[in-house]
Amino acid sequence: MVSFQCDYTTGAHPAILRRFAETNMIPQPGYGDDEFTLSAKEKIRAACGCPEAEVELLVGGTQTNAVVISTMLHDYEGVVTADTGHINVHEAGAIEFGGHKVLALSGKDAKLAAPVLQEFLEAFYENPSRDHMVYPGMVYITFPTELGTLYTLEELTALSAICRQYQIPLYMDGARLGYGLASRQTDVTLQDIVRLTDVFYIGGTKVGALCGEAVVFTHGNRPPHFLTQIKRRGALLAKGRVLGLQFDTLFTDDLYMKISRHAIDMAEQLKEIIRDKGWEFYRESPTNQQFILIPDEEMEALGKTVQFEPWERYDKDRYIIRLATSWCTTQEDLDTLAAFTR
Amino acid sequence: MVSFQCDYTTGAHPAILRRFAETNMIPQPGYGDDEFTLSAKEKIRAACGCPEAEVELLVGGTQTNAVVISTMLHDYEGVVTADTGHINVHEAGAIEFGGHKVLALSGKDAKLAAPVLQEFLEAFYENPSRDHMVYPGMVYITFPTELGTLYTLEELTALSAICRQYQIPLYMDGARLGYGLASRQTDVTLQDIVRLTDVFYIGGTKVGALCGEAVVFTHGNRPPHFLTQIKRRGALLAKGRVLGLQFDTLFTDDLYMKISRHAIDMAEQLKEIIRDKGWEFYRESPTNQQFILIPDEEMEALGKTVQFEPWERYDKDRYIIRLATSWCTTQEDLDTLAAFTR
Amino acid sequence: MVSFQCDYTTGAHPAILRRFAETNMIPQPGYGDDEFTLSAKEKIRAACGCPEAEVELLVGGTQTNAVVISTMLHDYEGVVTADTGHINVHEAGAIEFGGHKVLALSGKDAKLAAPVLQEFLEAFYENPSRDHMVYPGMVYITFPTELGTLYTLEELTALSAICRQYQIPLYMDGARLGYGLASRQTDVTLQDIVRLTDVFYIGGTKVGALCGEAVVFTHGNRPPHFLTQIKRRGALLAKGRVLGLQFDTLFTDDLYMKISRHAIDMAEQLKEIIRDKGWEFYRESPTNQQFILIPDEEMEALGKTVQFEPWERYDKDRYIIRLATSWCTTQEDLDTLAAFTR
Amino acid sequence: MVSFQCDYTTGAHPAILRRFAETNMIPQPGYGDDEFTLSAKEKIRAACGCPEAEVELLVGGTQTNAVVISTMLHDYEGVVTADTGHINVHEAGAIEFGGHKVLALSGKDAKLAAPVLQEFLEAFYENPSRDHMVYPGMVYITFPTELGTLYTLEELTALSAICRQYQIPLYMDGARLGYGLASRQTDVTLQDIVRLTDVFYIGGTKVGALCGEAVVFTHGNRPPHFLTQIKRRGALLAKGRVLGLQFDTLFTDDLYMKISRHAIDMAEQLKEIIRDKGWEFYRESPTNQQFILIPDEEMEALGKTVQFEPWERYDKDRYIIRLATSWCTTQEDLDTLAAFTR
Repeated sequence: MVSFQCDYTTGAHPAILRRFAETNMIPQPGYGDDEFTLSAKEKIRAACGCPEAEVELLVGGTQTNAVVISTMLHDYEGVVTADTGHINVHEAGAIEFGGHKVLALSGKDAKLAAPVLQEFLEAFYENPSRDHMVYPGMVYITFPTELGTLYTLEELTALSAICRQYQIPLYMDGARLGYGLASRQTDVTLQDIVRLTDVFYIGGTKVGALCGEAVVFTHGNRPPHFLTQIKRRGALLAKGRVLGLQFDTLFTDDLYMKISRHAIDMAEQLKEIIRDKGWEFYRESPTNQQFILIPDEEMEALGKTVQFEPWERYDKDRYIIRLATSWCTTQEDLDTLAAFTR
Repeated sequence: MVSFQCDYTTGAHPAILRRFAETNMIPQPGYGDDEFTLSAKEKIRAACGCPEAEVELLVGGTQTNAVVISTMLHDYEGVVTADTGHINVHEAGAIEFGGHKVLALSGKDAKLAAPVLQEFLEAFYENPSRDHMVYPGMVYITFPTELGTLYTLEELTALSAICRQYQIPLYMDGARLGYGLASRQTDVTLQDIVRLTDVFYIGGTKVGALCGEAVVFTHGNRPPHFLTQIKRRGALLAKGRVLGLQFDTLFTDDLYMKISRHAIDMAEQLKEIIRDKGWEFYRESPTNQQFILIPDEEMEALGKTVQFEPWERYDKDRYIIRLATSWCTTQEDLDTLAAFTR
Repeated sequence: MVSFQCDYTTGAHPAILRRFAETNMIPQPGYGDDEFTLSAKEKIRAACGCPEAEVELLVGGTQTNAVVISTMLHDYEGVVTADTGHINVHEAGAIEFGGHKVLALSGKDAKLAAPVLQEFLEAFYENPSRDHMVYPGMVYITFPTELGTLYTLEELTALSAICRQYQIPLYMDGARLGYGLASRQTDVTLQDIVRLTDVFYIGGTKVGALCGEAVVFTHGNRPPHFLTQIKRRGALLAKGRVLGLQFDTLFTDDLYMKISRHAIDMAEQLKEIIRDKGWEFYRESPTNQQFILIPDEEMEALGKTVQFEPWERYDKDRYIIRLATSWCTTQEDLDTLAAFTR
Repeated sequence: MVSFQCDYTTGAHPAILRRFAETNMIPQPGYGDDEFTLSAKEKIRAACGCPEAEVELLVGGTQTNAVVISTMLHDYEGVVTADTGHINVHEAGAIEFGGHKVLALSGKDAKLAAPVLQEFLEAFYENPSRDHMVYPGMVYITFPTELGTLYTLEELTALSAICRQYQIPLYMDGARLGYGLASRQTDVTLQDIVRLTDVFYIGGTKVGALCGEAVVFTHGNRPPHFLTQIKRRGALLAKGRVLGLQFDTLFTDDLYMKISRHAIDMAEQLKEIIRDKGWEFYRESPTNQQFILIPDEEMEALGKTVQFEPWERYDKDRYIIRLATSWCTTQEDLDTLAAFTR
């Protein structure tokens, strides 16, 4: 059985496990004051080309979204997102748990279009009842999106300009950031993201780590007493070294981008296989996730050889399934899929 | 200057002020244990034809929605509403303040259609990722709606049936309940509402009271330790008599419905005047609120004689304004409006 | 039956009811933009001798505490109080509902002593683990306290100095402020309070209003978008005129202090009666509340003539009861109590 | 430099790292449905002698406390603890972040005494104002406590009986559970804990894991939709295998207790060394943490050889420091400390 179910079905990149073994008995202070965390932060700042960036390591994606959004919003503000946004659909209400509304706008290809945002903000500030409404206090986007699509540099620049016009921070959820940056179809670089967003995170969990996400505040805008704020949200890891060491490894010798590029190479082959099999794309994406329409009986047969993620029913005969590559997808995995016949 | 701005611009029905004066110096226990409150609850139960109903008095509408929804939802649940629902748009995020997501579905004429609800619930329970999503735990509707429209008995029955199928309480926000029940175009009675919903409130603030809303739990489903729960939400009034006396007055000699019918009589005349003037309806409603499209310059002229509510811009030349009648609209008010010329 | 149960058992001062009747049909905008509210705020600023004060009207005491504290604290902060503080004991956890910890320090006579506060703050800032603790972000005191006692000007000055040293706002809960300022034993004036605190409220509910508390932010420190913040807490009254008119009346012709002084006159007589009867004071207070120890059987007999508040059991034979005077206590009430014999 | 700073300064027990390496490339479903988690739960149930126990794995201690307490309390309830309780002092207000009050009672040796609890509960239920107060809805204890002390079986039995009398769950925070169970001075077994509490957690972070705590609900009392509830609190780990594998390893061949006993052996030697050096115990504990009073200048000298935790100032000349052993303390570490001279 090979797995294309998602990018978090296996453990960690072997280099990470090696570092765990090598450093295991070196005593380090807790809560992120360890030397590995300090080193990881330094390397991330360097990769970003942003010496003044403030980097914070957290455990998981929903946790990171909840922490960043709730510590940056004012009391009377909500967060704007495309309706498909992970925070709007698949985080079980974690943003609302923190007391804030998710203001969902209609998206296209899982992206928030600049004109849609502009129109929403204009209408809000013209609305005579706006003091009885939730103020838009942040814009949330994902890169890659939940459907594997990517904002172009032009789209990102336009969103950024609107946010700056309205003095609202732009936050990018980069749970799969590596796969976006490594895409053959992107014109966006990490430095662009640093320049155009106010805060973003570099996903570790789905890009080779056991767990961990690195939040980057790009211009001295980290909320005050951040450690205390994450502690009270139950998000402070006692052995911060666990996160520090993983990001230190991922940001040594360009490992993060190397394994991301590998996943994209595999994804490009995957798309060929899909086309060869005559399966219909629900979404053909430029990143590591591909969504396809598959008849029910074929889905059942496929499930005996290959693990995949059932997404949702498409029509009465077909289901949408997701096939994802990752840092650990192998040529053998692809060959097994290619060899599958109903 | 006459006012059609809304139904809460003046004080209270004179009968209420008389009762305040008559009872002013009679000492009564606080927090709702006074005799007026006990009497009001009894009269509301009688009007509902529901001796087992539990009635609770609160101060305002947003507060009532926040209290009812947050005390009835489970932790992992959100509340379903039409996208125009007051809780979704005009309560500044009060539901999210209590930690819960508002699950907005596309509405029509400010109403939630039964097939839309059915489809949403079916899709939710078929979704393999539903444990990562907010569970639908209540359905919220308004009667009349935010646009003055009304659910028919058939529509209400259909919604109720779906809620019971899914074991989700149906909650009706009756901020303007009297105006709905008094409409010449409704086939819904108070007893129908008792029968078809699980909890609803009878609006006082907009129907002749200084303040106050009466929540009715229809079948022993009041959350436990309700007084403590409202206290911790800052919603417990020390002098509960203030609420009790008002509802006791409104539910004596059918006053609540008498003044509601008066408002509807005035509204029917108002619609005639609007038609006579050649103004275009944005929404012609069967209740006390009428929404019309008015050119900008005419809006300005009108504002010198008549108070109205600017709703939102319709297009570049015209604005939507709301004209509302109420328990205290007079023939003279209508005559003044009729006499207005640009 | 006469009532000394508490200071919120009757309606409102007759002047307030008269004003309700006089102004009832004058249309006014909602949500605090009415002329009565504007006038009330102006008169309160004048009484405070503080033209720059920002005044906001809310409905009740617990609501006011919850709103003020949760809108002024930072995310990582809690509020410091004497352990007897109303917010710590009798508000059903309303502060914690808003997400913040109440940091209770040992009080004496229901007061927070300056040295106790100083020591706590020093220890906190010396504690190497303080980032894992709740930061003290506000100091809450009551005037009069829950036991009817009063801070002296010296005590208040000392607390204020510490708060300023640590840049923490000092908040005074004045649910019964009039009775404190009217006490024959106080050397504190309203102007002192304006000068020494950062925010306080002038209680209406217990000093002659049907409901209502007036919050005073003394130096431009009202939280931003305050209307939106109170709306989302369910604390915005639609008919703001109800609050405005009451405070406008109470602050016309010194009515607030006149009725407060009356209550104190009555309380001084009450203390004489208590002494004459040989009842033991649990707390003899300089304000309108007196706490006495009373044997169980005498409590039962007294209850047939006089309403009082059972406070809590003192020992196996005696109960603590509270007798309170108010703006509406009459000589006849006192005479009835004086005439009581077991 | 050797470290006695705390029990979470190093990585994980080598057996855990070995298992990570061995299983790294085996694809597994996320969110706790992996085979390692299923196996770990089975082994924990077996160790508990409680086949019906429900076991859930979370990442850290404060997170676990916040999740367990906020998902088990009713809306109107708070959690009772000794004033030294970790949730009351060192979790940055995480319980209040979830909306609930921590009801702190005076403790002795960091323990909550049964008579203190009994008296509190009796007084609460006799208090006529209790509906305005926070209901006690759970009792929280730590084993070992924050000072390393232990409840005796008799003490635990007494607390349990009171909780059952009042139908309040008893929750034990076992961040260092192994060190408590392995103490030479305890008469409490894991089976006793299963029998006497309603929910407890087995700490991994401080007993040999990289991270992780295993919550045990002892009698079918796990809150419903628990996965969704932890997801919305940001506490659901995508790669649940990381937690599952660690607990599976710790509960194979009694590893958890073996390494706990080792830490206790080291602690007994540590106490000897402390006594030999003539240092005064602030708290001599039966578990792995020892608190000693040390003159300032000696503290400084010691810090050059040995890492320890500065706890808090004791008096003007002396500081309280904590020395802790753990699963990875070696004889060499102890020898180095023994050899220290000022």
